[in-house]
Amino acid sequence: MEIEIATIGGYEEVGRQMTAVRAGDDIVIFDMGLNLSQVLIHDNVETEKMHSLDLIDMGAIPDDRVMSELEGDVQAIVPTHGHLDHIGAISKLAHRYDAPVVATPFTIELVKQQLQGESKFNVENDLQKMSAGETMSIGERCELEFVHVTHSIIDAINPVLHTPEGAVVYGLDKRMDHSPVVEDPIDMERFREIGREGEGVLCYIEDCTNAGRKGRTPSESVARRHLKDVMTSVEDYDGGIVATTFSSHISRVTSLVEFAKDIGRQPVLLGRSMEKYSGTAERLNYVDFPDDLGMYGHRKSVDRTFKRIMKEGKEKYLPIVTGHQGEPRAMLTRMGRGETPYELDDGDKVIFSARVIPEPTNEGQRYQSERLLKMQGARIYDDIHVSGHLREEGHYQMLDALQPKHLIPAHQDLKGFAPYVNLASGMGYEVGRDIHLTQNGNVIQLVE
Amino acid sequence: MEIEIATIGGYEEVGRQMTAVRAGDDIVIFDMGLNLSQVLIHDNVETEKMHSLDLIDMGAIPDDRVMSELEGDVQAIVPTHGHLDHIGAISKLAHRYDAPVVATPFTIELVKQQLQGESKFNVENDLQKMSAGETMSIGERCELEFVHVTHSIIDAINPVLHTPEGAVVYGLDKRMDHSPVVEDPIDMERFREIGREGEGVLCYIEDCTNAGRKGRTPSESVARRHLKDVMTSVEDYDGGIVATTFSSHISRVTSLVEFAKDIGRQPVLLGRSMEKYSGTAERLNYVDFPDDLGMYGHRKSVDRTFKRIMKEGKEKYLPIVTGHQGEPRAMLTRMGRGETPYELDDGDKVIFSARVIPEPTNEGQRYQSERLLKMQGARIYDDIHVSGHLREEGHYQMLDALQPKHLIPAHQDLKGFAPYVNLASGMGYEVGRDIHLTQNGNVIQLVE
Amino acid sequence: MEIEIATIGGYEEVGRQMTAVRAGDDIVIFDMGLNLSQVLIHDNVETEKMHSLDLIDMGAIPDDRVMSELEGDVQAIVPTHGHLDHIGAISKLAHRYDAPVVATPFTIELVKQQLQGESKFNVENDLQKMSAGETMSIGERCELEFVHVTHSIIDAINPVLHTPEGAVVYGLDKRMDHSPVVEDPIDMERFREIGREGEGVLCYIEDCTNAGRKGRTPSESVARRHLKDVMTSVEDYDGGIVATTFSSHISRVTSLVEFAKDIGRQPVLLGRSMEKYSGTAERLNYVDFPDDLGMYGHRKSVDRTFKRIMKEGKEKYLPIVTGHQGEPRAMLTRMGRGETPYELDDGDKVIFSARVIPEPTNEGQRYQSERLLKMQGARIYDDIHVSGHLREEGHYQMLDALQPKHLIPAHQDLKGFAPYVNLASGMGYEVGRDIHLTQNGNVIQLVE
Amino acid sequence: MEIEIATIGGYEEVGRQMTAVRAGDDIVIFDMGLNLSQVLIHDNVETEKMHSLDLIDMGAIPDDRVMSELEGDVQAIVPTHGHLDHIGAISKLAHRYDAPVVATPFTIELVKQQLQGESKFNVENDLQKMSAGETMSIGERCELEFVHVTHSIIDAINPVLHTPEGAVVYGLDKRMDHSPVVEDPIDMERFREIGREGEGVLCYIEDCTNAGRKGRTPSESVARRHLKDVMTSVEDYDGGIVATTFSSHISRVTSLVEFAKDIGRQPVLLGRSMEKYSGTAERLNYVDFPDDLGMYGHRKSVDRTFKRIMKEGKEKYLPIVTGHQGEPRAMLTRMGRGETPYELDDGDKVIFSARVIPEPTNEGQRYQSERLLKMQGARIYDDIHVSGHLREEGHYQMLDALQPKHLIPAHQDLKGFAPYVNLASGMGYEVGRDIHLTQNGNVIQLVE
Repeated sequence: MEIEIATIGGYEEVGRQMTAVRAGDDIVIFDMGLNLSQVLIHDNVETEKMHSLDLIDMGAIPDDRVMSELEGDVQAIVPTHGHLDHIGAISKLAHRYDAPVVATPFTIELVKQQLQGESKFNVENDLQKMSAGETMSIGERCELEFVHVTHSIIDAINPVLHTPEGAVVYGLDKRMDHSPVVEDPIDMERFREIGREGEGVLCYIEDCTNAGRKGRTPSESVARRHLKDVMTSVEDYDGGIVATTFSSHISRVTSLVEFAKDIGRQPVLLGRSMEKYSGTAERLNYVDFPDDLGMYGHRKSVDRTFKRIMKEGKEKYLPIVTGHQGEPRAMLTRMGRGETPYELDDGDKVIFSARVIPEPTNEGQRYQSERLLKMQGARIYDDIHVSGHLREEGHYQMLDALQPKHLIPAHQDLKGFAPYVNLASGMGYEVGRDIHLTQNGNVIQLVE
Repeated sequence: MEIEIATIGGYEEVGRQMTAVRAGDDIVIFDMGLNLSQVLIHDNVETEKMHSLDLIDMGAIPDDRVMSELEGDVQAIVPTHGHLDHIGAISKLAHRYDAPVVATPFTIELVKQQLQGESKFNVENDLQKMSAGETMSIGERCELEFVHVTHSIIDAINPVLHTPEGAVVYGLDKRMDHSPVVEDPIDMERFREIGREGEGVLCYIEDCTNAGRKGRTPSESVARRHLKDVMTSVEDYDGGIVATTFSSHISRVTSLVEFAKDIGRQPVLLGRSMEKYSGTAERLNYVDFPDDLGMYGHRKSVDRTFKRIMKEGKEKYLPIVTGHQGEPRAMLTRMGRGETPYELDDGDKVIFSARVIPEPTNEGQRYQSERLLKMQGARIYDDIHVSGHLREEGHYQMLDALQPKHLIPAHQDLKGFAPYVNLASGMGYEVGRDIHLTQNGNVIQLVE
Repeated sequence: MEIEIATIGGYEEVGRQMTAVRAGDDIVIFDMGLNLSQVLIHDNVETEKMHSLDLIDMGAIPDDRVMSELEGDVQAIVPTHGHLDHIGAISKLAHRYDAPVVATPFTIELVKQQLQGESKFNVENDLQKMSAGETMSIGERCELEFVHVTHSIIDAINPVLHTPEGAVVYGLDKRMDHSPVVEDPIDMERFREIGREGEGVLCYIEDCTNAGRKGRTPSESVARRHLKDVMTSVEDYDGGIVATTFSSHISRVTSLVEFAKDIGRQPVLLGRSMEKYSGTAERLNYVDFPDDLGMYGHRKSVDRTFKRIMKEGKEKYLPIVTGHQGEPRAMLTRMGRGETPYELDDGDKVIFSARVIPEPTNEGQRYQSERLLKMQGARIYDDIHVSGHLREEGHYQMLDALQPKHLIPAHQDLKGFAPYVNLASGMGYEVGRDIHLTQNGNVIQLVE
Repeated sequence: MEIEIATIGGYEEVGRQMTAVRAGDDIVIFDMGLNLSQVLIHDNVETEKMHSLDLIDMGAIPDDRVMSELEGDVQAIVPTHGHLDHIGAISKLAHRYDAPVVATPFTIELVKQQLQGESKFNVENDLQKMSAGETMSIGERCELEFVHVTHSIIDAINPVLHTPEGAVVYGLDKRMDHSPVVEDPIDMERFREIGREGEGVLCYIEDCTNAGRKGRTPSESVARRHLKDVMTSVEDYDGGIVATTFSSHISRVTSLVEFAKDIGRQPVLLGRSMEKYSGTAERLNYVDFPDDLGMYGHRKSVDRTFKRIMKEGKEKYLPIVTGHQGEPRAMLTRMGRGETPYELDDGDKVIFSARVIPEPTNEGQRYQSERLLKMQGARIYDDIHVSGHLREEGHYQMLDALQPKHLIPAHQDLKGFAPYVNLASGMGYEVGRDIHLTQNGNVIQLVE
């Protein structure tokens, strides 16, 4: 059976991920993501009203015109988890394909919300839930399986397409976490089985984000322990404490909520995306937040909440807000600018349970945000975080488990692939033979 | 009563700490340290055979000639903990003073060993043990108290000289740890009492090492959780695993020993200073190591141990060795050079539970050491560590607890004092009024 | 005669410089600057309409309320050169003092323009021109002298107040340039004389910006040679070339204009501040630009010029524009956004004859600007620049020339003073004795 | 005609360059270099006594065993210039091939000296001089041509193998300098001709060292202007001035010698490699040093010279010495350690006309060296240098001139190739089609 892999997007950048695997006449698409930074650099761009081709020209969504080179039918569009760089282009591209979107329940829910915000296209693909551990048939001879992985968002999976030629494992994005805070550990057992059963693994497409970093990515439980240390250290403080983290990072939000209670404060989630992700997680029963946990997204209800906090006493609350990267319109930045009813006083604490994404734009914005907060007397606790991406040792362990015949480095540009290539070369792989260095828009023929 | 403070050493560098406080006719000396980097830059220097004046000229030990400006008698020499930059000059300078060395039991033991290695001077000062929480009289009207603090070595204290004019608190070195792994938490309760009782705190001398870093220094329990995550992740590995850390860091060594057992390996401590510090801690009952824990310092017994390990199987052992900074003659560096019987194989793990001290010499040596280890196939896990020094928020909390009248930034040069001065200025202190910027060799008159 | 120095602004930051020297009953004020970054961090602030006290609270202009502590009359307000951090607060503060503004002709002209833009206050102080080498009497026994120095703007001087107790030399800002491109070399001869004549130098107030950088600041002629190399290397290019630099940097603009001609292109200056500074320099005969050199500041005339260039051929022109720091509203940034009629093509060259001022906000903006330019195909040449501030060796040479009794480090915060203090300590000065570490709002009494 | 390219060494590192081109039955080898850092990391290795296979195992010299895969006869071994990473393995590998070493006269002379130092092998290949602009026949249908380029050593060329299928241009190493200080500018005219004549350029092998750096590498004349600025600024100093630079950098040494004279000092070259390179350049008439210029390499004559300098007065001399990277045994490091008769005094100047090669080992050694020099009172001037390798714009211009069909990035590892690939992709090249990403030991078939 012919096996081809089209590396459509996310092979020259982080963002706009999209990969298609053709096995015989059947095609499965993995991810359809958005590169938000290509949008934000322009002023006043409203992506929800834009046409696909313009977004492709901007480098914001994958250029899927290469799909015409694959002879077969798309059977499924499979976003691996709910981050925007994996689902953000579904509203712009999915309607071109007569195939359902298949994902885990949490991811499906986020896709649904994404589609509701779209104004330009009418995406009517079927949205089909499938949980980690489950499978579905793809054509007559292939099978799609979801393997549970741990990442900085819940319900993430690595999809595996089982073909007669062996398995194609799509490895974006994950950390190897044996003690995550919410959910189960990564299912390494299953990866090891896949590596040994049947024809083994034909191809492994891997997330190279942290491939150049030594050692292993710490478990979420390490970040949790660190966060606990910080929060208990301010237990006796009788003024304002504010925390921020990635809205979609449900485990971290859970820890913040829990520790708030531990130090005698009422947590409250503020900001549109805070409400969106945590609300969704709660509705779908992924987490069991306290009954009295407030979540407010609309400007008015946020401001009303802030007024209540100011009235009842800042020392009673822990607002958990958006703005960890200093985004100009996020809640924390607005608090820094004094645009909300919440007044910061000298000595108030601001906890960034996040790391600045290392890019000058972010660094500049975050710096501005911290400056504004400090001008109002705030004290900053930062870098209470662990990454969601494998480092060197995780990569070694995945190679050891899967023993793939072919490797396709992904989720970076060539410079980012380089350390992964070094690592794989040390394991006996070779560029041009079984390591495939590719760019956006290429098709790699694995089995003729 | 006249109160003067002589800032003798460690006010233009980290290393060679020495400060004297005169209260009326009585003087107490805090610390007599060695700046090892000023020694190591020269080839073939044997400090144990050198005269004080030569070491002073080298900038290696404090220039205590300023002591002649203080009119009074030295009543005690008080090293705060057992690190070399606090005790390393006792063998060169203490004999000039007719006063006992007063320190906690662990520190006293390390001083004793230091004196035994000295060849040039015959130091016969009385070595007097005093534990945290205890006090001794200094002259007729003053009292010396030890307050328990947490640092990267056990049995560290902050000495407090109670005078009729208020307390002089010598704050070198500490982290504010409420959940250290060995020992009790820092005694903040006592600091708060001292800040409020009697005349309050006249002067606080503070360790500025991390004063420019945001947030709080994480607890040792965070490093321990991180270390546990790393060690359990290699539980199934059936080859060699080697760990290194600061020899004097008994809490960390304890965690390494414990986790080695958890993953089914026999820990063994190797290297002269590993044997020295851990042996001392065990003899004095600070820790309760497993009965079968081997500690070997002499080259021959180390090599014999390595041979036994190679014979019985590397997968049965966890050697815990010296060399975390890539020091050219340390055990791990020798292992990298292939100079020991322990043979590293492809995939073997080396765990650095330490951070590179950020200075080009260390960085160069550590880089070389890692290159050598990697050439032999080793995989590196690094930065599993937390600092032993207060960051911003710890400093705020100390100022809040002690409410000192005067501040003397220490344990840095002027550039290192700058962030502390900014921080204290924000709390109402002012340079030239109550913040005393000083250099080595100055005398500050606090009460005339 | 009593001599006091009030360090009013610019002693905790770079920006809002202001220092007053009282000699007996007479006071001279050096600089009244604006810290623009404290303004720009807020949205929509229009400084020209704001009250002084609000700007003081923002940290934007010097808090001159300390002037009430000086018993004497202000005889002159002396801005040393035309940069905003030295003249930008004159419009807000000068009217409080019954004294003329005394400066070199180019600086006076820039002050005049600054005052014309002010809406809130009516500043009617006399504007008095005095050239380098000239003097004026201050009261009965003092004399003010201007010594010519070299900086990144023309007509910069260091003012010297000669008093019966010795000279007070105000050393902000300068580079020691023996081969500047426009103007004469720095007048080191005169500094050496001042150091040796009469009572010598009582006090030297020094610009510490680059005090921590090794070696010497290169001459403007080095930047010119570098720029020439770049420009001749693109001589054969037949598309668009655009250059940007500091608008106030007349020497650099002159070199750009000259090299444009050398490679057969017509230079044209575009952007409000480009027109302002170069127009002023030409009107006052500091430079002799080609007769056909266009300068356009208003949006409409700029756009008209761009249209003409597009019509006649980009290969015929070298637009020299604002925007070297990626300022969001500057000309080059607008070009990057495609908001001007000038269309960049693949391969067009953009020459940054400037260095990014190392602060995350600038770095973020400049990065965004370069990204936008590159999206349009532009190629970037950057860092063709030399600093306008003394490095280590310049400081040694100034100390050697002046041999001052007292030193006051300035134009930085404490951290920035630290390397200068180290340097001066090595020359025998001592903190607290003759090195005065000061903050905003202090008064230092030198002679009682 | 079949054309194959074997990328033997220098495709995973900088160092041990070696590439072979087979055109039909004839093979030409370009470079045989040594990776010195792989040697120096081991203690006490004497390469001159070592066997090739051991050096190959160490990664120090190219693993030329892949040559057996090329079916043809080696007709020439062509080192492009005299740097060790291009000629350092000739003594270990050339004797395996029955072919002459063909190089420019200066390079041949350095190869000869290299061979004389070899103890293990007896290399008797013919050493054949050929100058830039000249050609020789390779087999019946090919021709080898040398094109003059500018680099940080004189007499560098880019060899071109003209084949019936087009030219193979070997582009290591060069800067595009139109105003070098010694020698002629780079022969861009000839490159443009080669790009347009006959079959054009089949393949271009390119040095990617600086491919990720914006703009263009400045001309040597820029470094010279910078150096002149520094040296004239110390013209009046009446103590010791010492300079260091790359010994093989004849242009820079020439400038140092000339400026020494300009400021009234007698230059003298000290250190083994200083004597070697400059002596060779002078003997072969590449430079015309003053008759009285002393060059001393042997320890005894160096010390004698230092003694003479100390006796006659340091202010009369400019010693130009080895040690710009802080190499532990180089002359300047020995001066810092006080191991030579030359005594440094407070205020003496040390001029580093070199940049630290950015690698932690060098940075550590250089830092130590500067610390030692400063302890003796020296003042440091550093970074007076320009690179010898093309940056982005040079690469664009080379592609424009040659218009090659195939590209092989070289002189870096994959991470270093990445920016060059980006650049070439922007020009229409594509990985896997005409950009060949390769590693050591590969053979690329260009024409079958």
